[in-house]
Amino acid sequence: MAKQNIQTLKGFRDFSPNMMRFRNEAIKRVREVFEKYGFEELQTPSLEYQKVLLGKYGEEAEKLMYLFDDPGGRGVGLRYDLTVPLARYIAQNQDTPMPFKRYQIQPVWRADKPQKGRYREFFQCDVDTVGSLSPIADAEILAIIWDVVQNAFKFPDFEIKINSRSVLFSSMKKAKIPQKKWSSVIQSIDKLDKKSSGEVKEELRTKGFSADQVANVFTVIGKAEPDDYLKEVVKLAQNIGVTNLTFTPTLARGLDYYTGAIFETVVTEPKIGSVTGGGRYDKLLGDLGGPDLPAVGTTIGLDRCVDVIQELNLWKDIPPTVTALVTTFDKNLSSASINVSNILRAGGINNTIFPDFEKDLKKQFKYADKLNIPIVFIVGPEEFDNGQVTIKNLKTGIQETFPLEELVDKARKHI
Amino acid sequence: MAKQNIQTLKGFRDFSPNMMRFRNEAIKRVREVFEKYGFEELQTPSLEYQKVLLGKYGEEAEKLMYLFDDPGGRGVGLRYDLTVPLARYIAQNQDTPMPFKRYQIQPVWRADKPQKGRYREFFQCDVDTVGSLSPIADAEILAIIWDVVQNAFKFPDFEIKINSRSVLFSSMKKAKIPQKKWSSVIQSIDKLDKKSSGEVKEELRTKGFSADQVANVFTVIGKAEPDDYLKEVVKLAQNIGVTNLTFTPTLARGLDYYTGAIFETVVTEPKIGSVTGGGRYDKLLGDLGGPDLPAVGTTIGLDRCVDVIQELNLWKDIPPTVTALVTTFDKNLSSASINVSNILRAGGINNTIFPDFEKDLKKQFKYADKLNIPIVFIVGPEEFDNGQVTIKNLKTGIQETFPLEELVDKARKHI
Repeated sequence: MAKQNIQTLKGFRDFSPNMMRFRNEAIKRVREVFEKYGFEELQTPSLEYQKVLLGKYGEEAEKLMYLFDDPGGRGVGLRYDLTVPLARYIAQNQDTPMPFKRYQIQPVWRADKPQKGRYREFFQCDVDTVGSLSPIADAEILAIIWDVVQNAFKFPDFEIKINSRSVLFSSMKKAKIPQKKWSSVIQSIDKLDKKSSGEVKEELRTKGFSADQVANVFTVIGKAEPDDYLKEVVKLAQNIGVTNLTFTPTLARGLDYYTGAIFETVVTEPKIGSVTGGGRYDKLLGDLGGPDLPAVGTTIGLDRCVDVIQELNLWKDIPPTVTALVTTFDKNLSSASINVSNILRAGGINNTIFPDFEKDLKKQFKYADKLNIPIVFIVGPEEFDNGQVTIKNLKTGIQETFPLEELVDKARKHI
Repeated sequence: MAKQNIQTLKGFRDFSPNMMRFRNEAIKRVREVFEKYGFEELQTPSLEYQKVLLGKYGEEAEKLMYLFDDPGGRGVGLRYDLTVPLARYIAQNQDTPMPFKRYQIQPVWRADKPQKGRYREFFQCDVDTVGSLSPIADAEILAIIWDVVQNAFKFPDFEIKINSRSVLFSSMKKAKIPQKKWSSVIQSIDKLDKKSSGEVKEELRTKGFSADQVANVFTVIGKAEPDDYLKEVVKLAQNIGVTNLTFTPTLARGLDYYTGAIFETVVTEPKIGSVTGGGRYDKLLGDLGGPDLPAVGTTIGLDRCVDVIQELNLWKDIPPTVTALVTTFDKNLSSASINVSNILRAGGINNTIFPDFEKDLKKQFKYADKLNIPIVFIVGPEEFDNGQVTIKNLKTGIQETFPLEELVDKARKHI
């Protein structure tokens, strides 16, 4: 096979068993949090009609889409996010009881320039309440973000930034920015998490704003306060137990589709951008072709979160998938090895038999070691003749031989 | 939105929360079985280079592939199965410790004609041991199939058909079929699970075989016995506890790539085709461009299995994802409802708050009922004033009011 043939595509990754341990654990924990708050899972197809996908995200986004004709000649495309499929699902299932509290954990595809924390196929974990204008719905989304990041993922240092579109808009009014320039100013001040205020001021001057206007913007933003709705959301979220909320009057979120509260979670280390992003979008589902229903939700970026967990080595204690290796000696003893494996399995201990008869035990130990399997059970001719098994703990080096009946007890002691 | 826009593509499906309950439970149970036997998960990208995909499955298969150019102009395609990505992974990761016992649960895409039990996007659960020639490896695959179908899925009536390529080939020899016609005869007799022996005999005559040859084939097949390797595999599988094995000398499996044992699981009801298929393929990984390593494994068709579980209503006892609804009354009492929801959540009870203040409790009950939520907690003004909560069990109709401190105990009693 030529070199090119054996590669994954640029921006795409295989997940080895060792990476899958973390990804599966992360998905399990996210799912548990979503379900605790009464959200249920939806999955939608990877492919949608191009008519569903196009004209929704803007020209720049459409350049990143995987669009093509299927073998039947239909114009199709890979899912770009989980919001448009949600709008399509609700449009197609108008009898869905409202409010619809759904979560969705699936990959999306964007042919973006690959870089640290950015892949062309990545998993989004979306959680949204559709059909409710209540601040309780917003507060629950904040609670889920907090519960995932704080309790499920155990991030040591994070900030949930919150703001509201109306805070931004009233700041623009107070700073006497003409309405048609709001979005340009908001785009610049949104960069204050990455750029210094000097740089942002310079950018606004370059955009043609006067020194007075720029100074006004910064004064007004400095004094900005949450509006009544956001105050109510924060109060309710705190009732649920949420901490680490930071009112951030410069937070704008890139997307224009938010209409109310906006949320974003950042971690101090590693430098990886935001790990969650969301807010209230009361017009979007209608604009996307769905029914005209309000909604609030967030995306949790699974790939970035798992990157954080692995880089900071936050989950030292998640157990290996396979706990024990059962050695084999020769064909005559294969039933004896299978018997040990059976007993362990019935005792709830995931174990693997070394299937190839191999009298050199060191080779089998080395195999266990490479797979991070901590415990080896040896069933050699001597053990078999005496109705015994030998356990070797590869971490501690401890080895002992005991009667077969004690197998599960001994195994549990060493795990 | 025009009608066409709000549809899923032909052959593709949304999975509503009610369907996801079954799919998630099925995946969880399959995963547990795979891991009990020491297999670990691998995931590979949805897209591969066309050079990886093409020239591997034959012309007919390539017509069903979703092939296209990505936005960067690379020739790419969606995964057609999980075996070619496995071969590519091993070729790219030659330091993988052998034997490599991996499982993979991911969707694949085939633009096949949609029909009952056949979708254009469907999940395969593959489990394979790469790098071992031992019959223990084959026996473990049989054990996994049996454990999934019998214990995890609880299928009431199934048969694991087994055969071996060498049984087929020696039958052809004994029936004096010229070697270049073997594959044609084998293709016909493989249909004996769907067609009568009369029909298959007729088909063979039409193919140009003489009456004597056809009679020979049926006599030889009627007397065929497992070869020594298959006998050893069966013995080891039975040691593990496997039942429902049926030696089926006509079983051929469509794919030419099997070299040894072959396995297929069928259910009597519903009529849905095979639910698992696999065998030993010692040449395939090399042919697919991977290293020249032997392998044995099976695919479990998740979508068909879940169809069986739902059609036969096999899992009556899987609990609802969300157990309780907490009603809301008005803005002043929202903190009280949140408090009840918090206490339930801390007690491990997944619950949903009805976020929209709604004094008409019947509407909230109706909502719970539509979502199959069995229990409702009511926090009205009277309950709040007296530090109490009312529970209503929608299944039994039982309703009682009790002090807030008894909340979790009362909830557990009703679940």
